[in-house]
Amino acid sequence: MAESNEQVVRNKQVVLKKYVNVGLPKESDMEIRESSIQLKVPEGCKDSVLLKNLYLSCDPYMRSRMKKLETPSYVDSFQTGSPMNGYGVGKVVDSTHPDYKKGDLVWGFTGWEEYTITAPFLLFKIEHTDVPLTYYTGLLGMPGMTAYAGFFEVCKPKKGEYVYVSAASGAVGQLVGQFAKLLGCYVVGSAGSKEKVELLTNKLGFDAAFNYKEEQDLDAALKRYFPEGIDIYFENVGGKMLDAVLLNMRIHGRIAVCGMISQYNNERPDPVHNLMYIVGKRIRMEGFIVSDFYHLYPKFLELVIPSLKEGKITYVEDTAEGLESAPAALLGLFTGRNVGKQLVVISHD
Amino acid sequence: MAESNEQVVRNKQVVLKKYVNVGLPKESDMEIRESSIQLKVPEGCKDSVLLKNLYLSCDPYMRSRMKKLETPSYVDSFQTGSPMNGYGVGKVVDSTHPDYKKGDLVWGFTGWEEYTITAPFLLFKIEHTDVPLTYYTGLLGMPGMTAYAGFFEVCKPKKGEYVYVSAASGAVGQLVGQFAKLLGCYVVGSAGSKEKVELLTNKLGFDAAFNYKEEQDLDAALKRYFPEGIDIYFENVGGKMLDAVLLNMRIHGRIAVCGMISQYNNERPDPVHNLMYIVGKRIRMEGFIVSDFYHLYPKFLELVIPSLKEGKITYVEDTAEGLESAPAALLGLFTGRNVGKQLVVISHD
Ligand SMILES: NC(=O)c1ccc[n+]([C@@H]2O[C@H](COP(=O)([O-])OP(=O)(O)OC[C@H]3O[C@@H](n4cnc5c(N)ncnc54)[C@H](OP(=O)(O)O)[C@@H]3O)[C@@H](O)[C@H]2O)c1
Ligand SMILES: NC(=O)c1ccc[n+]([C@@H]2O[C@H](COP(=O)([O-])OP(=O)(O)OC[C@H]3O[C@@H](n4cnc5c(N)ncnc54)[C@H](OP(=O)(O)O)[C@@H]3O)[C@@H](O)[C@H]2O)c1
Repeated sequence: MAESNEQVVRNKQVVLKKYVNVGLPKESDMEIRESSIQLKVPEGCKDSVLLKNLYLSCDPYMRSRMKKLETPSYVDSFQTGSPMNGYGVGKVVDSTHPDYKKGDLVWGFTGWEEYTITAPFLLFKIEHTDVPLTYYTGLLGMPGMTAYAGFFEVCKPKKGEYVYVSAASGAVGQLVGQFAKLLGCYVVGSAGSKEKVELLTNKLGFDAAFNYKEEQDLDAALKRYFPEGIDIYFENVGGKMLDAVLLNMRIHGRIAVCGMISQYNNERPDPVHNLMYIVGKRIRMEGFIVSDFYHLYPKFLELVIPSLKEGKITYVEDTAEGLESAPAALLGLFTGRNVGKQLVVISHD
Repeated sequence: MAESNEQVVRNKQVVLKKYVNVGLPKESDMEIRESSIQLKVPEGCKDSVLLKNLYLSCDPYMRSRMKKLETPSYVDSFQTGSPMNGYGVGKVVDSTHPDYKKGDLVWGFTGWEEYTITAPFLLFKIEHTDVPLTYYTGLLGMPGMTAYAGFFEVCKPKKGEYVYVSAASGAVGQLVGQFAKLLGCYVVGSAGSKEKVELLTNKLGFDAAFNYKEEQDLDAALKRYFPEGIDIYFENVGGKMLDAVLLNMRIHGRIAVCGMISQYNNERPDPVHNLMYIVGKRIRMEGFIVSDFYHLYPKFLELVIPSLKEGKITYVEDTAEGLESAPAALLGLFTGRNVGKQLVVISHD
């Protein structure tokens, strides 16, 4: 008689149908496919785990993986016709890996499907389970580490400095702002709707916030909020915003270049004109990738878990229900549909 | 009877007639004026020195001082109708400053004139006189310190790295390349003429060099010289070159932004499109100003003086004779007329 863990079950998957190099992809560029899977790591598959995926994380960098990348980048293109993959939270159903056993909760790289067999790659075991598990797609996962590494390690902030965050209500931005407040900085964020702006000041503790879509003149807006200039810019959007920021940086200012979401669908990137200010203002502009900083994850948790429990940090999530909603949820990042961290619930246990 | 040091002498001066905000200034935007000066620090002028100027340094940053700057920068505008000023080498003729006495040789900030009375501002006493004194306008002066600080302190180079220098035959660039070779890097330079390119490879020890004016496609040129990519870019020119470099940087590459001479006469700066590469390649792009590093001058001399005497460092100068030639010499920087460090000889002793 077959053991229960050899049971064959349905495995719905999100598949990329074709590459989309330019423009906002459509939901129909992805499809939901049904396949099946045996709930056991196949014979001979050493050091592997079979995960039941609980939550999937929608992340902007996935957009570049939907392109047919000609030159190698720090990420590779998705395989068309195969399930997409990305960050998520899962539960170990079966394991041939000595470090993982059935029932373990993990976050890290997994497939956009109900079940995934993987040789653990960028998987972290979840130790703290007395917090919402969904947080491991955001606050306690990759975006949280991005905010932490980008702000503390790249920006090297000092108490009292003037900090500006774009895409400030998002998965990364909302946390950058809160870290900056915890340190004693003055923090202003920008976002793309009234609702998000209110969230920033009323719930997330930003000193001020503005809707960049309502500003004719970004330079003037920044001058209004930073009459003394900006010490630290946490760059999430690029393009015109970066150009305006360069005009408003202070001497020895730092720009952590986390991402440039306004550019991801463009055929040709928008021009930036004001780089000359980098010299006179001795600006340091530095790109970073979160995975270079994962060795700091334990240190990060030491800061965040207590702050969370003491109510010093809060986190806003935007939850889509069901794998079928994943394509729309992902694309919503590029129109600003998400309010807070966008995740997709596949299963609650 | 008047003492000899109270003698009144002619003092020729270079005066800016009017501000030139856009475009290449003309020689006629400056004029040579004759005035006279008493060879004595005036009664009541404490802590001042009277310098006889020997050599003046022509430096690209002076271009921005010929503009009426609206927003304060790290330099201020020249006063129209008054003598211009800048770096130079001089001899103390009279002094009311306890640290300076008649006959002392100095380099630092002085007037574009034959004699200057100044409260010592950015003046360095010349200790080593067994080297050409003109070198204190270049190799042993501000441009030398710029190359040193920009390369060692900002780029943080490692042996074996791939280094690219633009405006490579100039006052700063020729030294950056030599420092990189001393450290064991692979160094390529670009410059604007066949003569300069030959200088780079034949005399200055660059591994390779190219004439950027003869390249239709700067990206392709860089790929030819850096098939593995660039670790360090010492940025002197900006604009199109920076855009091409961004395509060719390696992971964790560094760009020391020393200057962007291709932009100084522009009305509107050229667009840069490829900043997105800063993220994936984790590029650090950092501006710097030499005067922030003058505390390292003694350490710099410890490296350079012995290297010079042992023939491990060489230096190319372009010498204009007489104060009258100063305006043309200065403007020549922006057409690439100078071959090596551009200086103006006012007097040999
Ligand atoms: N370097 C790394 O390792 C790393 C890791 C994670 C994330 N990132 C980057 O960090 C940034 C934020 O990511 P996230 O996960 O926190 O996403 P997010 O902010 O939760 O979601 C994306 C948000 O970007 C804004 N946006 C979309 N299109 C825009 C445009 N054209 N101009 C301005 N804003 C636009 C939208 O908010 P509005 O309504 O405010 O427009 C949208 O909600 C992205 O650039 C991402 O690529 C980098
Ligand atoms: N940050 C600081 O503290 C600091 C201090 C000193 C200098 N700097 C900067 O360092 C750079 C080099 O200064 P330097 O004193 O060594 O000058 P330099 O190289 O001796 O002279 C300027 C050279 O720039 C090149 N050039 C002129 N117009 C150009 C253009 N449109 N495109 C490309 N190249 C052009 C010319 O050489 P080609 O024939 O090769 O075109 C010219 O000979 C400048 O950007 C300057 O502002 C910065």
